[in-house]
Amino acid sequence: MNQYLEFAIQLAEQLKGQTSTNPSVGAIIVKDNRIIGFGAHLKKGEAHAEIQALNMAGKEAEGATIYVSLEPCSHYGLTPPCSKAIIESGISRVEYAVKDGSLSKSGHDMLEEAGVEVIHSPSSRAEELYKEFFIQQKKKTPFVTLKISTSLDGKVATDFKESKWITCKAVKEDVLHLRSENDAIITGGGTVREDNPLLTSRKPNFKEPKRIVLSQQSSFDEDLQIFKDRDNPAIVVTNHPNFEIKDTQNIELYKSDLSNLENMLQLLYKLGYASVLVEAGPTLVSQFIEQDLADQLIIYQAPKVIGGQGKYQFYQTNDVYPLSKIKQFKFISTEIIDEDLKLILRK
Amino acid sequence: MNQYLEFAIQLAEQLKGQTSTNPSVGAIIVKDNRIIGFGAHLKKGEAHAEIQALNMAGKEAEGATIYVSLEPCSHYGLTPPCSKAIIESGISRVEYAVKDGSLSKSGHDMLEEAGVEVIHSPSSRAEELYKEFFIQQKKKTPFVTLKISTSLDGKVATDFKESKWITCKAVKEDVLHLRSENDAIITGGGTVREDNPLLTSRKPNFKEPKRIVLSQQSSFDEDLQIFKDRDNPAIVVTNHPNFEIKDTQNIELYKSDLSNLENMLQLLYKLGYASVLVEAGPTLVSQFIEQDLADQLIIYQAPKVIGGQGKYQFYQTNDVYPLSKIKQFKFISTEIIDEDLKLILRK
Repeated sequence: MNQYLEFAIQLAEQLKGQTSTNPSVGAIIVKDNRIIGFGAHLKKGEAHAEIQALNMAGKEAEGATIYVSLEPCSHYGLTPPCSKAIIESGISRVEYAVKDGSLSKSGHDMLEEAGVEVIHSPSSRAEELYKEFFIQQKKKTPFVTLKISTSLDGKVATDFKESKWITCKAVKEDVLHLRSENDAIITGGGTVREDNPLLTSRKPNFKEPKRIVLSQQSSFDEDLQIFKDRDNPAIVVTNHPNFEIKDTQNIELYKSDLSNLENMLQLLYKLGYASVLVEAGPTLVSQFIEQDLADQLIIYQAPKVIGGQGKYQFYQTNDVYPLSKIKQFKFISTEIIDEDLKLILRK
Repeated sequence: MNQYLEFAIQLAEQLKGQTSTNPSVGAIIVKDNRIIGFGAHLKKGEAHAEIQALNMAGKEAEGATIYVSLEPCSHYGLTPPCSKAIIESGISRVEYAVKDGSLSKSGHDMLEEAGVEVIHSPSSRAEELYKEFFIQQKKKTPFVTLKISTSLDGKVATDFKESKWITCKAVKEDVLHLRSENDAIITGGGTVREDNPLLTSRKPNFKEPKRIVLSQQSSFDEDLQIFKDRDNPAIVVTNHPNFEIKDTQNIELYKSDLSNLENMLQLLYKLGYASVLVEAGPTLVSQFIEQDLADQLIIYQAPKVIGGQGKYQFYQTNDVYPLSKIKQFKFISTEIIDEDLKLILRK
């Protein structure tokens, strides 16, 4: 692949996870084999990658080539369309890696009609980068990752509900990373009441995800630490008509029907959360899977078998499905983490 | 490592799996940088590797070095001790890779006392080769591998007992290999009655393992194909006092207490089966695990979740164990096989 296009994709990869529901994009402007401008989209609402690069290049842009990781946009959103700015700059050639199927009129066509040479150079690496974005775009819901810590035999606790700890220390560290890679963490009210978790990434240089608790009950006890953070309120999404926030609790409250989790996810997407990590008990985890809302599973498997009758399996449903109808995923990667195994699966 | 010792280990690896309860051994005799003899143990009861190599070298052995993958034996078993033959041949130097802790008097000492120079050159590759042998030697039971085909959530069938097929075609091929690598396959009477399996490796160049069926009942139906092979009788191990073999059935019958599977395994070891593959339903598989008799698990995991209440989990026990007492294994390897994942774990 062209080195400049590759550099543009690298830029986009670096910024992934901080552009909310916008895709992460990188752009490089080249003239006479010299880079005269580059940019990357830093934050939703701020300048797109192409605009930053054009600003840097200034008048030199005339007759230059711009390399972009994603097809330039053609619509007025929070910012004016990049294709228009490219045309006005006098850029003579555009090369991009991934087609943006979410555009009503393609940027590719808009640029060509204005006499700009446009080349689509497909890249599997860049396609991987925008996979989540296109899924979200279509469904208007965040990209959902379920984190599951289980024994080999699919259990998350013994029949007496002992669950501390099934996986090893190194897995706990890995989960802190995972949290910082997501815009928000979703957990259930039951988990908050029983485990009193903080659900932070706990590292100075890690992004802290928003903490979201789903609750069917009318309140939470005052001693729960997740609601005590003065600076970072937790979100509570509830279907309870009279949910009560106590004086000492820092809570942003939203209402949603919790029997249909897709509604709740659409609400989160509107709030700007483009990726969520579900760290919850087997009931909530099973609901996400059964309602077909899990885009990705990250399973930490301990090399142990728990046995018993399996009262706490990570996936349990009231209905029995025939094998032709059960939920199917695809292995993306496997990695040994100390003594445990980390599996990543996608739909 | 020395190239000749490595060659001896390679020879031993090639013959692995055909020497029954004996270890697979390779030997190379070298004089003036020329190989003047080599041998490998082909079959229990026949000449050991060292003897073959000495026979090939003949009188030239005097003053030569012998490289052996395992410490030469010092005892009269089915054949006279190799250490004695080495001493008598006039070999002046012995180099071997793995100490044989199962010997009452070490071959190393016996050779040194006779004035032969003896060098132990440890090799992790050779140690891997003899791991199973030493485990068996100690326990006087075969090396037991459990084969488990499961969903991600630890189930081997839906609650309505539908189980065909959870894993993909490529896994079935892999299982045929696995069968040929073991001396025998163990299954339960229930599986034979329900699935009517052949349990062969079905390949012209594959070793056919002995088929062993555990039965608590007094007979098997005549139509079951596993007992119809005129050339290869299946073994039935039963605790039923009046088990009846029908005229059309080719069965070798043995009695054993089936509530304690270790007794049954000791019986198989005495019969010369050094490695067994258990391909059975969850009840028998769970018994092997719970009774601490599984040396190795080979788990084929399909990227699917079955859900339901989990009536057919691959590991279920009547007792509930605290997490500190559950059975623990170690991941040895992971491999994607087409769409499924193959996990190998050891104790």
